[in-house]
Amino acid sequence: MTAPRNDTFLRALLRQPTDYTPIWLMRQAGRYLPEYNATRRRAGSFLQLCKSPAMACEVTLQPLERFPLDAAILFSDILTVPDAMGLGLYFAEGEGPKFEHPLRSETAIHALKVPDPTVELRYVVDAVSEIRRALDNSVPLIGFSGSPWTLACYMVEGGASDDYRHLKTLMLDRPDLLHHLLGVTADAVTRYLNAQIEAGAQAVMIFDSWGGALSAHAYREFSLAYMQRIIAGLTREHDGERVPVIMFTKGGGQWLEAQVEAGADALGLDWTTDIGLARERVGDRVALQGNFDPTALFAQPAGIRREVHRILNNYGNHPGHVFNLGHGISQHTNPDHVSALVEEVHRHSRVIRTAGKV
Amino acid sequence: MTAPRNDTFLRALLRQPTDYTPIWLMRQAGRYLPEYNATRRRAGSFLQLCKSPAMACEVTLQPLERFPLDAAILFSDILTVPDAMGLGLYFAEGEGPKFEHPLRSETAIHALKVPDPTVELRYVVDAVSEIRRALDNSVPLIGFSGSPWTLACYMVEGGASDDYRHLKTLMLDRPDLLHHLLGVTADAVTRYLNAQIEAGAQAVMIFDSWGGALSAHAYREFSLAYMQRIIAGLTREHDGERVPVIMFTKGGGQWLEAQVEAGADALGLDWTTDIGLARERVGDRVALQGNFDPTALFAQPAGIRREVHRILNNYGNHPGHVFNLGHGISQHTNPDHVSALVEEVHRHSRVIRTAGKV
Repeated sequence: MTAPRNDTFLRALLRQPTDYTPIWLMRQAGRYLPEYNATRRRAGSFLQLCKSPAMACEVTLQPLERFPLDAAILFSDILTVPDAMGLGLYFAEGEGPKFEHPLRSETAIHALKVPDPTVELRYVVDAVSEIRRALDNSVPLIGFSGSPWTLACYMVEGGASDDYRHLKTLMLDRPDLLHHLLGVTADAVTRYLNAQIEAGAQAVMIFDSWGGALSAHAYREFSLAYMQRIIAGLTREHDGERVPVIMFTKGGGQWLEAQVEAGADALGLDWTTDIGLARERVGDRVALQGNFDPTALFAQPAGIRREVHRILNNYGNHPGHVFNLGHGISQHTNPDHVSALVEEVHRHSRVIRTAGKV
Repeated sequence: MTAPRNDTFLRALLRQPTDYTPIWLMRQAGRYLPEYNATRRRAGSFLQLCKSPAMACEVTLQPLERFPLDAAILFSDILTVPDAMGLGLYFAEGEGPKFEHPLRSETAIHALKVPDPTVELRYVVDAVSEIRRALDNSVPLIGFSGSPWTLACYMVEGGASDDYRHLKTLMLDRPDLLHHLLGVTADAVTRYLNAQIEAGAQAVMIFDSWGGALSAHAYREFSLAYMQRIIAGLTREHDGERVPVIMFTKGGGQWLEAQVEAGADALGLDWTTDIGLARERVGDRVALQGNFDPTALFAQPAGIRREVHRILNNYGNHPGHVFNLGHGISQHTNPDHVSALVEEVHRHSRVIRTAGKV
């Protein structure tokens, strides 16, 4: 039996009743925590931190020691898969992630191969195992990957981009080539997530950070279709337990009805979507995760608590909500404000359940 | 009688039948045109170009000489109003607009005054008159302003921002102060747009470039409410002609139903919204403007034409559509691709009207 002692998060993802609304935070292990910065300095670089299972495990656990969070998430980077495909991930100071060999030719795209995650991504698989051991079944561990579209943004642009010019040009001028690229990447992500599940990830999340940059039509064809393909290929039960899948397209609030069809157990919402309306739109088919504006953590605790109430009251007394931010936590966040957030989500959601209504 | 010889744009905004779908492009006078860059060099700086009615007139007309566009838009900057309020607009090379005196204290916010547009913004009013004379009733002239929320982003942050941290903190910690700031700014924008209408602007547009960064609830309270207040105060008929109002919240596609209530004649759509579904959602209450992805202009003309067909076919054979980009045109755009876009919108929309259906 491997169910964690606190399984609130997993139950909420499966839309089962819970005593309170579970919460975790995107990028909860990160630069807003002094202890994270200390480990990172010791590692030498962000990439070395990701590639050391022992240190990845250490930072994964840090936020759980500070806050009563209901889930841990593997500390890693979303670009490990293209790195394993040979694109040469590196981090330029102050510029974010970059690839030494961005995909700019038909030859380069046709040369892409699906990596074996137990070989080329061994350090991630080992980190998952080590974190599971360290968690000792206290809370569940989430594995993750970037979506094929989001990975393709970096693979083709070579780094962050304002307008995804090269990728969108490829999309319109050579859709066949882009479909090939996305297909190989989807297969790589499927194997990668299944390796994480095999190593002990108890839920997995697909981050479609840039799907919201697409038109409604292009989103379905070039992002959603490939997430659906991945989800269809995932191991959904491991060690006798269901492994829920969360799919999150930032900026994708207009397309929830289409997203439901992809087969995930839960959909992520950023803070621009009204979570009460979202629940009506998707019915009882999926759980919802979100939708607190991370910038609201700069407000004083009184303002943070008002925003928590707004979201929880708007969602109402239904099962199937995992509280989270709508985007990664800012490095400038005061950890005391995170305490106020986590505490109020737990406290006020218990009040709502006790009252039986909002 | 001051109706322009080509009034297709105005008729579409009022949801009257037209022979074809009119088109203009956000930022159509801009750096992708060599003739614009020549005038700008002559002006010495972007701000001097904005502040010279003769040169603002010159660049306003340049795209109309190249392309058969159905409207001209006043060449100006969205930050002229806060500049006239004393914040000291300047442009740092490669960093975009900045203010010398960002609003960071209660005293500074309470000291804000509504400028007299015929005095402090005389150069804009004069540019409108001069452009109208130069257009000689060929196509209509659009006046514009930023929305209060969008202006407040720059006024409080002091420049472009990723997360609007100072403004959102103000919103949660001191909503009373932010409401005061937005109220004064809304009054300033109302007077500014009415001065443009008085000088000859035949339609006006409110650009809410950053409203999409808000939660659904905060959008209604801090952005939409102030645009509604502005629209209620606008001169809607001038010189015997109706003056249509366009309201555009970039990233606001989830909130169209709420936007309809603000009283605009037309709503702008970025490219993430399905324009066919948008028409169903807003019914016959407003015209729609958009929704081509400006990045698609990097594709070859064949790809551009496919995207034009997709949007026009999706909208169908109804009145009330003004074709446009979902965001300003990129400076790296090939003008020949703009020709292909404009030509195909005119050509294919005539085909749809002749066929009587898609």
